[in-house]
Amino acid sequence: MLIKDFKVGEEVTTFFLIKAKNVKTSSANKPYIDFTFQDVTGDINAKLWDVKGDIEHIYNPGELVKVMGTVTQWQSTLQLKIIKIRNVEPEDKVDYGQFIPVAPIDPETMFNEILFYINKMTHKDFKKLTLALLEESKSRLMYYPAAKSNHHAIKSGLLYHIIRMLRTGDALCDIYHNCNRDLVLAGIILHDIEKLNEMDANELGIVGEYTKEGQLLGHIIMGIKKIEKTAEALKIDPEVSLLLQHMILAHHYEPEFGSPKKPLIPEGELLHYIDMIDARMYDMNKALKDLEAEQFTDPIFVLDRRRLYRSKFAVTDEN
Amino acid sequence: MLIKDFKVGEEVTTFFLIKAKNVKTSSANKPYIDFTFQDVTGDINAKLWDVKGDIEHIYNPGELVKVMGTVTQWQSTLQLKIIKIRNVEPEDKVDYGQFIPVAPIDPETMFNEILFYINKMTHKDFKKLTLALLEESKSRLMYYPAAKSNHHAIKSGLLYHIIRMLRTGDALCDIYHNCNRDLVLAGIILHDIEKLNEMDANELGIVGEYTKEGQLLGHIIMGIKKIEKTAEALKIDPEVSLLLQHMILAHHYEPEFGSPKKPLIPEGELLHYIDMIDARMYDMNKALKDLEAEQFTDPIFVLDRRRLYRSKFAVTDEN
Amino acid sequence: MLIKDFKVGEEVTTFFLIKAKNVKTSSANKPYIDFTFQDVTGDINAKLWDVKGDIEHIYNPGELVKVMGTVTQWQSTLQLKIIKIRNVEPEDKVDYGQFIPVAPIDPETMFNEILFYINKMTHKDFKKLTLALLEESKSRLMYYPAAKSNHHAIKSGLLYHIIRMLRTGDALCDIYHNCNRDLVLAGIILHDIEKLNEMDANELGIVGEYTKEGQLLGHIIMGIKKIEKTAEALKIDPEVSLLLQHMILAHHYEPEFGSPKKPLIPEGELLHYIDMIDARMYDMNKALKDLEAEQFTDPIFVLDRRRLYRSKFAVTDEN
Amino acid sequence: MLIKDFKVGEEVTTFFLIKAKNVKTSSANKPYIDFTFQDVTGDINAKLWDVKGDIEHIYNPGELVKVMGTVTQWQSTLQLKIIKIRNVEPEDKVDYGQFIPVAPIDPETMFNEILFYINKMTHKDFKKLTLALLEESKSRLMYYPAAKSNHHAIKSGLLYHIIRMLRTGDALCDIYHNCNRDLVLAGIILHDIEKLNEMDANELGIVGEYTKEGQLLGHIIMGIKKIEKTAEALKIDPEVSLLLQHMILAHHYEPEFGSPKKPLIPEGELLHYIDMIDARMYDMNKALKDLEAEQFTDPIFVLDRRRLYRSKFAVTDEN
Amino acid sequence: MLIKDFKVGEEVTTFFLIKAKNVKTSSANKPYIDFTFQDVTGDINAKLWDVKGDIEHIYNPGELVKVMGTVTQWQSTLQLKIIKIRNVEPEDKVDYGQFIPVAPIDPETMFNEILFYINKMTHKDFKKLTLALLEESKSRLMYYPAAKSNHHAIKSGLLYHIIRMLRTGDALCDIYHNCNRDLVLAGIILHDIEKLNEMDANELGIVGEYTKEGQLLGHIIMGIKKIEKTAEALKIDPEVSLLLQHMILAHHYEPEFGSPKKPLIPEGELLHYIDMIDARMYDMNKALKDLEAEQFTDPIFVLDRRRLYRSKFAVTDEN
Amino acid sequence: MLIKDFKVGEEVTTFFLIKAKNVKTSSANKPYIDFTFQDVTGDINAKLWDVKGDIEHIYNPGELVKVMGTVTQWQSTLQLKIIKIRNVEPEDKVDYGQFIPVAPIDPETMFNEILFYINKMTHKDFKKLTLALLEESKSRLMYYPAAKSNHHAIKSGLLYHIIRMLRTGDALCDIYHNCNRDLVLAGIILHDIEKLNEMDANELGIVGEYTKEGQLLGHIIMGIKKIEKTAEALKIDPEVSLLLQHMILAHHYEPEFGSPKKPLIPEGELLHYIDMIDARMYDMNKALKDLEAEQFTDPIFVLDRRRLYRSKFAVTDEN
Repeated sequence: MLIKDFKVGEEVTTFFLIKAKNVKTSSANKPYIDFTFQDVTGDINAKLWDVKGDIEHIYNPGELVKVMGTVTQWQSTLQLKIIKIRNVEPEDKVDYGQFIPVAPIDPETMFNEILFYINKMTHKDFKKLTLALLEESKSRLMYYPAAKSNHHAIKSGLLYHIIRMLRTGDALCDIYHNCNRDLVLAGIILHDIEKLNEMDANELGIVGEYTKEGQLLGHIIMGIKKIEKTAEALKIDPEVSLLLQHMILAHHYEPEFGSPKKPLIPEGELLHYIDMIDARMYDMNKALKDLEAEQFTDPIFVLDRRRLYRSKFAVTDEN
Repeated sequence: MLIKDFKVGEEVTTFFLIKAKNVKTSSANKPYIDFTFQDVTGDINAKLWDVKGDIEHIYNPGELVKVMGTVTQWQSTLQLKIIKIRNVEPEDKVDYGQFIPVAPIDPETMFNEILFYINKMTHKDFKKLTLALLEESKSRLMYYPAAKSNHHAIKSGLLYHIIRMLRTGDALCDIYHNCNRDLVLAGIILHDIEKLNEMDANELGIVGEYTKEGQLLGHIIMGIKKIEKTAEALKIDPEVSLLLQHMILAHHYEPEFGSPKKPLIPEGELLHYIDMIDARMYDMNKALKDLEAEQFTDPIFVLDRRRLYRSKFAVTDEN
Repeated sequence: MLIKDFKVGEEVTTFFLIKAKNVKTSSANKPYIDFTFQDVTGDINAKLWDVKGDIEHIYNPGELVKVMGTVTQWQSTLQLKIIKIRNVEPEDKVDYGQFIPVAPIDPETMFNEILFYINKMTHKDFKKLTLALLEESKSRLMYYPAAKSNHHAIKSGLLYHIIRMLRTGDALCDIYHNCNRDLVLAGIILHDIEKLNEMDANELGIVGEYTKEGQLLGHIIMGIKKIEKTAEALKIDPEVSLLLQHMILAHHYEPEFGSPKKPLIPEGELLHYIDMIDARMYDMNKALKDLEAEQFTDPIFVLDRRRLYRSKFAVTDEN
Repeated sequence: MLIKDFKVGEEVTTFFLIKAKNVKTSSANKPYIDFTFQDVTGDINAKLWDVKGDIEHIYNPGELVKVMGTVTQWQSTLQLKIIKIRNVEPEDKVDYGQFIPVAPIDPETMFNEILFYINKMTHKDFKKLTLALLEESKSRLMYYPAAKSNHHAIKSGLLYHIIRMLRTGDALCDIYHNCNRDLVLAGIILHDIEKLNEMDANELGIVGEYTKEGQLLGHIIMGIKKIEKTAEALKIDPEVSLLLQHMILAHHYEPEFGSPKKPLIPEGELLHYIDMIDARMYDMNKALKDLEAEQFTDPIFVLDRRRLYRSKFAVTDEN
Repeated sequence: MLIKDFKVGEEVTTFFLIKAKNVKTSSANKPYIDFTFQDVTGDINAKLWDVKGDIEHIYNPGELVKVMGTVTQWQSTLQLKIIKIRNVEPEDKVDYGQFIPVAPIDPETMFNEILFYINKMTHKDFKKLTLALLEESKSRLMYYPAAKSNHHAIKSGLLYHIIRMLRTGDALCDIYHNCNRDLVLAGIILHDIEKLNEMDANELGIVGEYTKEGQLLGHIIMGIKKIEKTAEALKIDPEVSLLLQHMILAHHYEPEFGSPKKPLIPEGELLHYIDMIDARMYDMNKALKDLEAEQFTDPIFVLDRRRLYRSKFAVTDEN
Repeated sequence: MLIKDFKVGEEVTTFFLIKAKNVKTSSANKPYIDFTFQDVTGDINAKLWDVKGDIEHIYNPGELVKVMGTVTQWQSTLQLKIIKIRNVEPEDKVDYGQFIPVAPIDPETMFNEILFYINKMTHKDFKKLTLALLEESKSRLMYYPAAKSNHHAIKSGLLYHIIRMLRTGDALCDIYHNCNRDLVLAGIILHDIEKLNEMDANELGIVGEYTKEGQLLGHIIMGIKKIEKTAEALKIDPEVSLLLQHMILAHHYEPEFGSPKKPLIPEGELLHYIDMIDARMYDMNKALKDLEAEQFTDPIFVLDRRRLYRSKFAVTDEN
């Protein structure tokens, strides 16, 4: 049974991934465990009131568990009151893939699609620089999400974000001939590359914390430094390096979102809009895909508290 | 000789279209004419100091003239001091096409491209409503610009704006499957349709004034009313009509740019970004296309006073 | 006993109107009912822990009940712990009027006052159009509130809002001779008329939800369309229709409050200020009327979190 | 002949009041006088190129002159090229009243109307304090404008502003019973009283400069201090003094317009809106009164660059 | 044992100062007491469930108590469940100093340091006015905090704020010779002086409520009135009084923070920055002093939700 | 005779530095030269109408000239009409020092003062890194201004800005013990260091243009890259490098002024305020130093159009 299908009052028996665990004290002054459980459809808070065993060391984040519990409700949110819990055993035959929201395309396939676009570039320095930075990042790029809690906050979400943007960028260059395709494609591939060092994420695609450098400088500044140094080492044409640094610097567009400069080249302008479109289509699809027709969602924080509408004519990206 | 090639101190003899004319008084208290002349490459201020004939009735906007004059400069802008001027005669063999910036594609061709996209729609009500509104607007749509002075302020500019947006919208629907293609295409075709009634433009694509209704309500509100009434008359599914009205209402996105609601459906979100991309690519191409490589433009008012950069790798949309 | 007189620790026996009902689950995993009860002085949260009968189908919103309970407190807000509850019976001799905050003037009287002001108009088209729209709206106007939760969120609140504004508008036209009285009065009567279709309210004056069109377009746009179509049908002078549409469009004044245009005629400017004054006097009177002299209220959300002051010289509008 | 009727190219002979005078040097390096002339319908720039006499000491601001000149135009604004000029002589039989825009009601009459409203107050301290401050200000109040260049920038404009506000305030207190009439009336009378010390104006109602205290503190702070000291001297109930100080402090409403506090009493809220209405009706009447029907004005700076519309139904306050 | 060292699950026996007390009702409908206890290291919420004695009159704010209790946790915040409680008795030998956060320098010493700076002034009027206002305020200045809950919200915090600013102001006048030292020093001493009348604080330095005048006018306006009246009484040069009033008016710098005028003299500009530096250094030191190296704090509300970083090179002001 | 002493109508004979030169065309269609001349007290526009010689190649920016001319006035600004002009010859015995506003302290002395503060640092890595970057920049630092047109836009202005900030920073570290002095001093020395590469300035301290990298990235980003690379090369403790990069990134404080992050360490907070104080004291001193007592300046653009006041007690920094 999946979390999204839970109803108040039901008793359920199912498997979860432990996303978070906190030991707390009840009003009766007894310790209990406050969990966040996750499966591929979402997450739910759960309480284990009657703990047996070493409370600090059992049932840790990242472990899989089998749970029997009752679905309750607190302030219009569902919770789970745990009746029984144990760790998953080999004979349960469950694997992580069932518990982790993940991009709908295989990472290897997505990585190869990026290589396809790099191959489409015509100027050797764009190719060389982009390829070098991509190869260096490959191992983590295979599973990193694109964000801690916003759009594409799923395993391999950053890759998925990049390839949808590449498809869009490539199509737009067919229509708008005032943009250099190499610049657009390279800018897309590199625009968020230092998110890999701004956040710590594990191989499940779950972000723990921002890194020290991530908090003090941020991925935009870190990306600029990375390009600067790699381009110098590879003796790339300085204009190639400078333009890509500028595009990264400007891609959030507004100062209050982290870009001290607005784009001064059309390829930078395009990069910004391609990034916005991909993020918004992702968030809107996620909010609407399980809603019934002719209904409104609750206010959505990351979309300025808009209440989206699923029209009679709505379609869904099942991916 | 074209206006964009004028240099201070030269004497030039060439043809112009009169874009504007004002009778003024010199410091010596003599009347003179202050013109704006235009050719396909731009416009220039010109002064006729020594007027012969009925100053109020000769040389009116919309007329073609042959002029000999000297190129002067005032506050870093070029001007023309008129030495001789006369109206164009048949034997001059010049025609309006040489003086009016015009979209790079033939209007009939563009109109047919819109029909092609309407034909691609799958739901009959979207087809019927869009077609009815398009046919009703056709005569003026063939020459209307998209704006008085911003992007696509050229003859047939509104058509050109629409077809580039249709190409983009169609391509994005191939990538983002959470958008209904009919809605996206219909929204693009209709989003600015009441600019035809918001502004008065002549057949040269030059906007005179905003209309009374244009100033008191604006093309967004006017477009909503137009769709409402046409859809009622054609007995269109009310949801089709309502969604298109909502997309028009929301397509400027921010309240301070005229949209009291933000898009609540993904097709409305997409419409906004497609509109922005097309306007910005147009403006940026225009600003950069005659600049030398590795130079910056002057601050550009409609682009938040940014000074754009023409990189070594810049390409130009000759259209 | 009235809600506003409840004190912590008291046991009370009294009648209420059920405003809202939610079935929830207790920490002991038992279902209970979470009510909002209302009388004419306010509302209070109440819990029925020990439910007898079909929990989903008994005690629904809109029903009157007799309740015995104890007043408790949670986070500085009073609650009611229900000891006994039953539905009202005929011999209880209570009626809805005792439970619903309602405008202080009889709706028929208020409606007639509007007619009086329509009669005061001098131009037949203003009269005809206003009267037609008013008659069409009459049945719901008799009980609709002016808002879901802000000013005049009471039964017949919209009527009450309109007549106080008419009195003000009429008085101001005696002082400011640059305003056409017909326009001012017609603008006041029609400015919020489509709130009747923007929100669903029952005959108790309680708003349930915003309608689909209300959320996608809003009452301003809906009002403009309504005037357009009615005026066309009645062959009203188009300038009359256009000016009223403009006044409705502009009456929220700032883009971020829903008006894409600011008033371009003095009558529209006046309408905005008259609307503001009536809303603010209502909210301030409500906040201050039960406060003791020389005290401050808590921060009031709809008044920018101001803490109002009830001065030694304060007077109260008992209506 | 009046300034508002001047047309380019005409030769006119008429009387003016000199509003401003600057000695400048021509491009031919000769001194000339640059005047601003004024009559009751407006003002115009004028140049005297060929000066006879002691250029520094003749024709000073505040003097009346008879002028013959030619109307010229510079950058769409009319100017006057002076042919002859001389000072007015007794036999010209012109007086200042013909040259100075002035409130449409006699100052004595307006002052008495204020006394009438003071007399309407019911609490002796409001009466005593308001009367004392009014009497102290009387001599300058008779001719002071309400502003240097905005609304009511005419002789006795401050008085005129006050009495129209008093009429409005009195009418609103009949409608809104949650406002203490004494407070509203006293607040209106005193709200701008220190404009008398914030600006230096001469008896023609023309403002020269802001005073030192006006620039360093402003009339709001100065008014608070004035009330504080006068109320202490007269042993007024401190709550009366405090409430009036608060109303003055809050009457500009927004911090960026000079009010660090928003109104915390309904009388303060009302004062703000009454002030806004009076200013806006004044400015709009001024902008529209000489326009033809169904025309738009140029953008008006003090009205956020709105282009006002004079509708078919527009009326004008000839005052 | 100190509050900052409490850990979940521990049983503690220690002394506290009662900072706040509320009688509430439990879900079981029994009254209990909800306390805030305080010692010199911070404060903690505590519950006394089983109350013996007259619940309304025992254990009031400001009293010292001895408590045995268990440390629990609610929503990541520590609480105390009280097991035993009694009032402090003489033989406990505890005194208030142990419970109240207090400025690190003795108030007499700080007061004398202010006198030292007054003595450094060269113009007698600055000396006389500052001294008079200081002497009048002395009794409360000895213990007043600088704020209710922000920077320097500790006993004698206002004095501590003033003397650190005086040291900075004096040092800056050695570097920037375009500032009059008398003005800078007098401005610092007087800038917040009416906080003594804006807030009610007890001798423990704990602020209860804002006063009526504090809410209606605020300490800036109150300070201006105080200087005005004192300076008039002492026959101080009016320019001295006016400049100090201007400096107080402008010291919050931005309208939205309470200053309707920006500084027009360099001494006022300096005052603003000195005030900011002292507040920010205080808040940052407080947030970082107990953190481990290379860690980030939680988001800090008064610092725009920044998460401060304690670097490897961080030093702490133990005061 | 110095520019600041020029009066309308005077004939002057004196020396100037040519700051700018433009060839223009007169209304009579003759070429003339439009100069900006400069001496140590300011600059003035000048026209040479009757040009002898090769107009394009004579009298270029950076040359010294002797000029006889008449002081005229245009729109309240003084101009110079050139009667005679020639290049300076050796026997004129004038040198550049007389024409260039320059910092009041000798650059060598200032540079040594920086070394003094570096020497005061206690941690070797701060010393080593700061020294390396300083030495590398020394040649241009000796004459660079701190800005193109704002504060310290004088020869050696950047050095002067740095040393006044160092004095302030050092004094503040004596008062605020929660700041690491090494960090504060190093941050000050390096905060604007890449202005040397953001702008092109000649040895007179006059800025020509912003560089390509300056426009596309800006001195903040460039400074971060410079520190990163130098620190890596010198094997500096990465925390030293990271903290200094963060301080540079955050020192403009607000996103709209170029800082995507606010300071997260107290040393960064302090750096921002020290920078502000030095810039503001410079601008205010410059605006006030030649004004008479008890006068207001004209509105000053870089100070938010404030009109500063020179009080009776004003002092001036002659430097």
